[in-house]
Amino acid sequence: MNFELDNVPERTKKPRTNGLTMVMDKGLSVRQAEDLVAVGADYMDFIKLGWTTAYIVPQLNEKLAVYRDAGVHPYFGGTLFEAFVIRNQFDDFLRVIEKYGLEYAEVSDGSIALPHEEKCRYIEKVAQYATVISEVGSKDNTKIMAPYKWISLMKAELEAGTWRLIAESRESGNVGLYRESGEVRQGLVDEILNEIPSEKIIWEAPLKSQQVYFIHLIGSNVNLGNINPNEIIALETTRLGLRGDTFHNFI
Amino acid sequence: MNFELDNVPERTKKPRTNGLTMVMDKGLSVRQAEDLVAVGADYMDFIKLGWTTAYIVPQLNEKLAVYRDAGVHPYFGGTLFEAFVIRNQFDDFLRVIEKYGLEYAEVSDGSIALPHEEKCRYIEKVAQYATVISEVGSKDNTKIMAPYKWISLMKAELEAGTWRLIAESRESGNVGLYRESGEVRQGLVDEILNEIPSEKIIWEAPLKSQQVYFIHLIGSNVNLGNINPNEIIALETTRLGLRGDTFHNFI
Amino acid sequence: MNFELDNVPERTKKPRTNGLTMVMDKGLSVRQAEDLVAVGADYMDFIKLGWTTAYIVPQLNEKLAVYRDAGVHPYFGGTLFEAFVIRNQFDDFLRVIEKYGLEYAEVSDGSIALPHEEKCRYIEKVAQYATVISEVGSKDNTKIMAPYKWISLMKAELEAGTWRLIAESRESGNVGLYRESGEVRQGLVDEILNEIPSEKIIWEAPLKSQQVYFIHLIGSNVNLGNINPNEIIALETTRLGLRGDTFHNFI
Repeated sequence: MNFELDNVPERTKKPRTNGLTMVMDKGLSVRQAEDLVAVGADYMDFIKLGWTTAYIVPQLNEKLAVYRDAGVHPYFGGTLFEAFVIRNQFDDFLRVIEKYGLEYAEVSDGSIALPHEEKCRYIEKVAQYATVISEVGSKDNTKIMAPYKWISLMKAELEAGTWRLIAESRESGNVGLYRESGEVRQGLVDEILNEIPSEKIIWEAPLKSQQVYFIHLIGSNVNLGNINPNEIIALETTRLGLRGDTFHNFI
Repeated sequence: MNFELDNVPERTKKPRTNGLTMVMDKGLSVRQAEDLVAVGADYMDFIKLGWTTAYIVPQLNEKLAVYRDAGVHPYFGGTLFEAFVIRNQFDDFLRVIEKYGLEYAEVSDGSIALPHEEKCRYIEKVAQYATVISEVGSKDNTKIMAPYKWISLMKAELEAGTWRLIAESRESGNVGLYRESGEVRQGLVDEILNEIPSEKIIWEAPLKSQQVYFIHLIGSNVNLGNINPNEIIALETTRLGLRGDTFHNFI
Repeated sequence: MNFELDNVPERTKKPRTNGLTMVMDKGLSVRQAEDLVAVGADYMDFIKLGWTTAYIVPQLNEKLAVYRDAGVHPYFGGTLFEAFVIRNQFDDFLRVIEKYGLEYAEVSDGSIALPHEEKCRYIEKVAQYATVISEVGSKDNTKIMAPYKWISLMKAELEAGTWRLIAESRESGNVGLYRESGEVRQGLVDEILNEIPSEKIIWEAPLKSQQVYFIHLIGSNVNLGNINPNEIIALETTRLGLRGDTFHNFI
């Protein structure tokens, strides 16, 4: 901190197991990645190379090195896993994990129909190569799941070896956990929290109103994901109760 | 590509005549332009210096050099042409084309009232100095043209020497081709495509939903314009059927 | 300007007392700050390090130096003042002003309840250390003030030593001066302008429609604030009547 302010809530320090921030990189250049970690290295734990951008982005190895040197774990979006699976190229996906030395990998079924037992078997297999983050919830807003269904899927995926569950929102924050307007499905969140430890979940929350909602509900050290690179400092002030929306949280 | 994925649709290669991407620069610095081409050079064909930003942006020559060195054609937004015409300075506009060695120039009437025959004469004149891209459709959402009118204007402009037609949307994607909500005027698009070869048209599509619409309708190699610099990698994955919205297009 | 256009309205030159542009920095890196001034130095007068971002952003001194070297005055958002006051650390706030050699400081009550006489006493005290910019209007959209109230607060703050008044909008442009939709409260603006000289007010106007509204109402040289760093060139063209929205203002 640049100067002293009393009564600022304590944030967990890196390497964190709780209070995680996952930022979404949807095609930054190497220099833009350097800019991001120049301000955000202390405040971000993971960087997701969104969906399949890792397939086409130039200078991928150089970018991964920038993130790693700053102590930020890179991983590839779950849509990449799905793109391999739907092409019967799952083994090639494992080769990609090895080729880029990825310590984390995402398993999801947001864009493909995958029997849940099969998804859990994929989690088990990927877990032999990397720490698995698995995503629950469809990218299709017409496929709304009841809360009990979310919970049973989450439990099964934890049992299969998932390290952290990601609750789907897309980059735009309007599916899965959220209504089309971006509003949080509060009943769904409450039921999930009643059954699953909150530290096991990374809530995708790209919109400020969604970040504020979860910080009010769970506290400064909630796990949040799909954060816009430009918002990393803003989010940290929100976590600390130092922005209008959360100003009275901790005082 | 960084690794192998089967059954990814083939994209045209540079120099492209179809499957063009035109990105909108609304005031990038030289270094930001370098960042853009570092990730996007292979995926973008044109960069439009939006409306009249070329008039005031510092280090204009340096920025143009960055784009040219990366094999991306820069040109100035049509509003600049209109700003010269409304001041009776059309000859000075031709001097600007020469001064900056521009190979492409945009002719439009989005902000001024110009009899269409006069617009076509301007197209003929500009075509003696640069390859002309001409824009059809008003920036004023209260001026809605019937489809037959769009088509007759487009045909006349092609006859006058236009190389590619641009269908207006503004930077915000809510006029011309689109309703105020950003939704595509589908009937209009269908009628245009019935009369004008799609490769002759660059569809301004700044919003993701608009890009997805045209990729579904016309395919990976549709010409798209007014793309945000931050979205160049994202758009390319969408063209390739590797993002949720188009995931099942090509499989 | 890069070439000659006739009949472009005259803009005030730096150091300006009117026609001011204040840009919002919500966590730029040092290099991103360099990029901003590379295009914007001539067009921006102030840079606000939004709310409390100055508390946590790395390399703060280096960033302040970049702005100062470009002739742009940096200052810290009013929420930082409030964060000190609510903790009974007002003297420490004055130390921060001294430590960073700030020539300007913002006093506000957007997130805390402060009797207005007390706010004015703070203005008097801060004015002994820096030129005061004070902000009127709540960040809470449920607290709507009548126009006569805005005016009496503004007059009292000018009397207490405020150099410029800022009319609140937040970063999102949907409170204070604006309805939740972002639309301007026009009656409020008219009544304020009837009583307070417009050059004394910086209108926070983060959305393009808001910028256009005030340029139409007051002219090219209106004072505007909370401008997005990416929009500095765009705003300047709008001021000059060289963008669709203001194209016919000056011709």
